[in-house]
Amino acid sequence: MLEDTIVAIATPLGEGSIGVIRMSGPEAINIGQRVFRAKKNKDWYIKDNYKIIYGHIVDPQTNEVLDEVLLSVMRGPRSFTAEDVVEISCHGGIVPLKRVLELLLRMGARLAEAGEFSKRAFINGRLDLSQAESIIDLIRAKTTDGAKIALNQLQGRLSEQVHVLQNDILGLLAQIEAIIDFPEDDLPEQTLDQMSLACQRLIDTINRLLEQADTGKIYREGLKTVIVGKPNVGKSSLLNALLREQRAIVTDIPGTTRDVIEEVINIKGVPLKIIDTAGLRETQDLVEKLGVERSRQLLNQADLVLLVLDASTGITKEDLEVIKLIKDKRVLVLINKIDLNVHHIDTTELKQYFNASAILEISAQQEIGLEQLEQTILELVLAGKVTNSENILVSNSRHKYALEQARNHLMEAQQGMKSYIPADLVAIDLKSSWEFLGDITGKNVSEDLIDRIFADFCIGK
Amino acid sequence: MLEDTIVAIATPLGEGSIGVIRMSGPEAINIGQRVFRAKKNKDWYIKDNYKIIYGHIVDPQTNEVLDEVLLSVMRGPRSFTAEDVVEISCHGGIVPLKRVLELLLRMGARLAEAGEFSKRAFINGRLDLSQAESIIDLIRAKTTDGAKIALNQLQGRLSEQVHVLQNDILGLLAQIEAIIDFPEDDLPEQTLDQMSLACQRLIDTINRLLEQADTGKIYREGLKTVIVGKPNVGKSSLLNALLREQRAIVTDIPGTTRDVIEEVINIKGVPLKIIDTAGLRETQDLVEKLGVERSRQLLNQADLVLLVLDASTGITKEDLEVIKLIKDKRVLVLINKIDLNVHHIDTTELKQYFNASAILEISAQQEIGLEQLEQTILELVLAGKVTNSENILVSNSRHKYALEQARNHLMEAQQGMKSYIPADLVAIDLKSSWEFLGDITGKNVSEDLIDRIFADFCIGK
Repeated sequence: MLEDTIVAIATPLGEGSIGVIRMSGPEAINIGQRVFRAKKNKDWYIKDNYKIIYGHIVDPQTNEVLDEVLLSVMRGPRSFTAEDVVEISCHGGIVPLKRVLELLLRMGARLAEAGEFSKRAFINGRLDLSQAESIIDLIRAKTTDGAKIALNQLQGRLSEQVHVLQNDILGLLAQIEAIIDFPEDDLPEQTLDQMSLACQRLIDTINRLLEQADTGKIYREGLKTVIVGKPNVGKSSLLNALLREQRAIVTDIPGTTRDVIEEVINIKGVPLKIIDTAGLRETQDLVEKLGVERSRQLLNQADLVLLVLDASTGITKEDLEVIKLIKDKRVLVLINKIDLNVHHIDTTELKQYFNASAILEISAQQEIGLEQLEQTILELVLAGKVTNSENILVSNSRHKYALEQARNHLMEAQQGMKSYIPADLVAIDLKSSWEFLGDITGKNVSEDLIDRIFADFCIGK
Repeated sequence: MLEDTIVAIATPLGEGSIGVIRMSGPEAINIGQRVFRAKKNKDWYIKDNYKIIYGHIVDPQTNEVLDEVLLSVMRGPRSFTAEDVVEISCHGGIVPLKRVLELLLRMGARLAEAGEFSKRAFINGRLDLSQAESIIDLIRAKTTDGAKIALNQLQGRLSEQVHVLQNDILGLLAQIEAIIDFPEDDLPEQTLDQMSLACQRLIDTINRLLEQADTGKIYREGLKTVIVGKPNVGKSSLLNALLREQRAIVTDIPGTTRDVIEEVINIKGVPLKIIDTAGLRETQDLVEKLGVERSRQLLNQADLVLLVLDASTGITKEDLEVIKLIKDKRVLVLINKIDLNVHHIDTTELKQYFNASAILEISAQQEIGLEQLEQTILELVLAGKVTNSENILVSNSRHKYALEQARNHLMEAQQGMKSYIPADLVAIDLKSSWEFLGDITGKNVSEDLIDRIFADFCIGK
């Protein structure tokens, strides 16, 4: 149990009906008692648990009422952080929330750092590290598929898989230890073959997880995309056409602020993240405005480039300038303005210049070919590997790295078994593999890494 | 009790730790039961009240888990709306909230209109109209003083005052009715004098409330302010200097989005609302860029104009152009750049051109004279009338209008008493006065007006 009591505003700031302040730690209930005047249930702080109490937040020094609130009390270890937690549901404006927060700070709570509530849930053993990490993925999910992958992880599906792998490695280690303990016994070849086979099964399982990792990362972080093309080729029209459907969905929920999703387009569940839209959308000529160097930098970050060409002009010198910049990227060529019924672009010629992933004919203005475009993007992303986001358990680079290392050590161990190297050396590789798997669930990670992971969270989480 | 069950996201949308979905109505608990899978406490829906239950939201058709949540159940009439209320505390991202909301809509809840929860609280008699109206003022409060005024109103201090006034009028009406019922009795002059005196006391009370109304409105809505001056006179520096302190305060709470408060400067508790800052701040020359007509329109909306002059240049032709536009407004003249130690502006000359509320010397760059500026603005606003925001009960134009009408009818009644006009005519004025007071607490207002009032609220409130 940590010593101090932390507090933060847990809801997004803005004009809303409800704003929640979350407080966790050994003093949470005591501080709550000092500032909260219950209407009934005045002895709530003695033993109420998982109860909501109606009342007012009152500054005990001035007796001034700061807000009319609902207070929720959840005692550890059955709480989000496994500590005593008090949540205060205030009126949602910035000023009332700020005043209540300031009072709680004055009463001895400390402003929580980013991710500190989740970090405590992890430190106190209520969540493992991959579960805690998934919380922020869930909050930041841009599409339903992204949310599903995060939720799977939060519910411990990746952790379960990791535990199974770790247990199997422990089984192998036990066999190896027996060999080390009794080195005089001859190691039957059969046993070694069996162990090597078991290693292979583990390697295969990890490889299957890793196969989905890149797709998982795209679902989680979005596919970084840049739309390029010469001036007036229809880049803005394309973006607007792709966005149009999104806006309709988003405005289903009144109050959604546009800027939250402005740069993310949902393509059949895959978040397409338009890089630096603000700059690029208004830039008529990417290269001219930004310079070749800056453009190259932007393009380097891109997972996908949409090159827009004009069917009515054919491939011009300007197009070739753009193509020069992107020919090493994954490019989808969109021949725009096909509604004009002039087709001056020869795809054979195009293929001379570079190797496009696909060439499509569209009309951004008339919204022709967009369904085909979305389908093509989806296929590029999934690359035929994953058909169902439910199966994706790995979406985080940290987890991917740990799995790769675990697999590599298993391969080393397997190699060792095959070449009859001393058993204790094989054991070292198996232990390393086991430890790398432990990094995922946070069994043996450094404090430093934990700090870094949670610093990426938002305040109040 | 209303027939249908309404639902909405009650927290601001954005990246936060917690997002709350609120559902109210006769089916709230039933719908909750169908989509919520409790970890323990599986029979929560039977009679649990003011309880928090941990579990998952599950789509009953697909068995898919949509989020891990805390569910709060508050049964009517002891709830915000006085109906059965279920609040679902989800992970705070847009996608999880949207998915849960969509499920609840599919289960038969209806998306709440703006302010509909508060409207139900009013219709079901849990809050009177002025209390319900204060909720949105509290949420939108820009300063602590603004929040205090709203909170006073939410706690019913204005309503109490109105009830006292209404009761006194009823007392007068009873006396008048006695006269009407027994017209043969001579009305003793003494009684009439006493009644007229009682009227006067009521009028005085209402006048005292009204005196504070304009100040209250400024605390509530902010003082609309425009900063004007010729190019390079230091308008932006002034705004930045005034904002600097604010930013520091605001960043005390990490996560505050800048755009929420960007245009409001807190001057000793008074919200200074810079009109159309985005346009004006970047406009080097207001008149040239916007044209005389548009500038005049903007200036017409302003409660206060800050005219910035340059101490080093003296009053130029350009200054006189600006002064021409603003001479009928409440203007505070700021002679800027006094740190340059050249004083070419003659205040006597300045006074020839127009009647400024005050003339101050400042240096926006060096932050000289800003404290004096803030103090002067405060004095202009309060105009010596109100020293303490705690005393302000009226801040809403609708309430002000009702009070004015109530007072006018009282004055008519008093006039009638003095001139011995028939008692039943006096009674009509007293009744009108009583009814106008009732408009404030919503005793007898039309459905139409109620709809209009609550439509101004945010969704989820």
